[in-house]
Amino acid sequence: MHIVYLNGDYVPKSAAKISVYDRGLLFSDAVYEVISVIGGRLIDMGRHVARLERSLGELSINAFADWSAVAQKLVADNDLDEGLVYLQVSRGVMEERDYRWPAPETAPTIFAFAQERSLLENPMATRGMRIITRSDLRWQRCDIKTTQLLYASLMKMEAEAAGVDDVWMTRDDLVTEGTSQNAHIISHDGILISHQLDRRILPGVTRIEMLTQAKSMGLTVEERAFSIDEAKDAAEAFVSSSTLLIMPVIEIDGHKIGDGHPGERTGKIRQSYISAVQGRPSTET
Amino acid sequence: MHIVYLNGDYVPKSAAKISVYDRGLLFSDAVYEVISVIGGRLIDMGRHVARLERSLGELSINAFADWSAVAQKLVADNDLDEGLVYLQVSRGVMEERDYRWPAPETAPTIFAFAQERSLLENPMATRGMRIITRSDLRWQRCDIKTTQLLYASLMKMEAEAAGVDDVWMTRDDLVTEGTSQNAHIISHDGILISHQLDRRILPGVTRIEMLTQAKSMGLTVEERAFSIDEAKDAAEAFVSSSTLLIMPVIEIDGHKIGDGHPGERTGKIRQSYISAVQGRPSTET
Repeated sequence: MHIVYLNGDYVPKSAAKISVYDRGLLFSDAVYEVISVIGGRLIDMGRHVARLERSLGELSINAFADWSAVAQKLVADNDLDEGLVYLQVSRGVMEERDYRWPAPETAPTIFAFAQERSLLENPMATRGMRIITRSDLRWQRCDIKTTQLLYASLMKMEAEAAGVDDVWMTRDDLVTEGTSQNAHIISHDGILISHQLDRRILPGVTRIEMLTQAKSMGLTVEERAFSIDEAKDAAEAFVSSSTLLIMPVIEIDGHKIGDGHPGERTGKIRQSYISAVQGRPSTET
Repeated sequence: MHIVYLNGDYVPKSAAKISVYDRGLLFSDAVYEVISVIGGRLIDMGRHVARLERSLGELSINAFADWSAVAQKLVADNDLDEGLVYLQVSRGVMEERDYRWPAPETAPTIFAFAQERSLLENPMATRGMRIITRSDLRWQRCDIKTTQLLYASLMKMEAEAAGVDDVWMTRDDLVTEGTSQNAHIISHDGILISHQLDRRILPGVTRIEMLTQAKSMGLTVEERAFSIDEAKDAAEAFVSSSTLLIMPVIEIDGHKIGDGHPGERTGKIRQSYISAVQGRPSTET
């Protein structure tokens, strides 16, 4: 993984450097996407591009590139079989630091890199994730995929300190999402409950395909927020994200979910999700 | 302003570049300070260093430097008479992107630059600031001076679009602060009201000295949050920040404060603040 895309060029990792005056660095004025790669193919690239363009639009950042071509070239040049492509866009460099935006014609800073990671053979799919819950103190536009990830990072470290895998965050006693995954439960009467799309959660690309697969398996889907207690009482719990794909949750705040093993329907959703995304062109939306 | 400090070196602006893998860029895992410079002297450097070290401590970022020496050299090398020194510290570079922190021995990324700006002769001190109010949607650790400034930047643009100077943000109908200033009012019975120090506001360096000056002028100080209505009914309103110093507010949401002109006591506080900070060694805490 040595070739990095930077503002139109493909450069060695060591040359992938940007100005300290970049607004991504000074104001977190930047958005990003993480696209998973399986068998050398980009998964759900079209939906990632759509979400990136939405994020850019919400912040009025003018940036255009052939995002798919960039990602595909990084996969090829880095000989990536399984892992991810990370893509970030900031409002660009502004040598006089100012909260106000620079002129609209200012060139954005665009970079992307590839990273190897085992996605299909993740041991967590068999053993399940253990979760703790914490208050969601992030900003209130979590629907925009910005680089303001400090709180999520702090929570990830809190999970590590507690000896568990991740944190589910809550607002008004309702679960919003994990540090970098959408959170879902399946009730004892077979209803899949997933937070509605609003400003409290990221509209997960994996979540879209997951819901499609769950419905085709006959599950009823309710898009609404659920409480920690509802989650603890659920039959199954799981998360979805581009790099974890579908991952079972077996414990929340020390309380076992179901029989304390990865849920059966969760396992089926994971399998049908993987089959679905592998079975179609990578640039399909 | 052509010499920039970067990880121990003083380099030309064009060479001040950092890796795209810096955690400041990928996770907003970074804190900063802005120190004002008047007459070639750093104002309140000791307090800025104390706050920087607190921010670093809250995030467990290990970074040590002779911050004062760096700032002083930037002032000297850039021949800066009036303006600011900006200083940023991130958790460092991590080539495998991960929410979890890198090993504690990872070198932080430290950079600093100087910027010219007219501080004493700001026309706003005579004409006063016009303010609108908006919900405070930032994260809930605003006491840590992180680079997660996107919402503040968006609000600054909203002020510009509305033809005013800034936004005061509110939580639970109480004013927290401006986009990059602490907010204060003076009631008709001569009480200076300023938000208490908690997680909702930045503990302003200028605010400390401002409160000292206000008390020495005989004003009673109440450290508590105030509502928008209370602000509108106030005799005077003003903000404090390192680069605005003390700045009168004459209008909130179209409503004139007092007689619609900069308040008399605000003017006195500004003058005594300026005299106080100019009259002592720049490294004094």
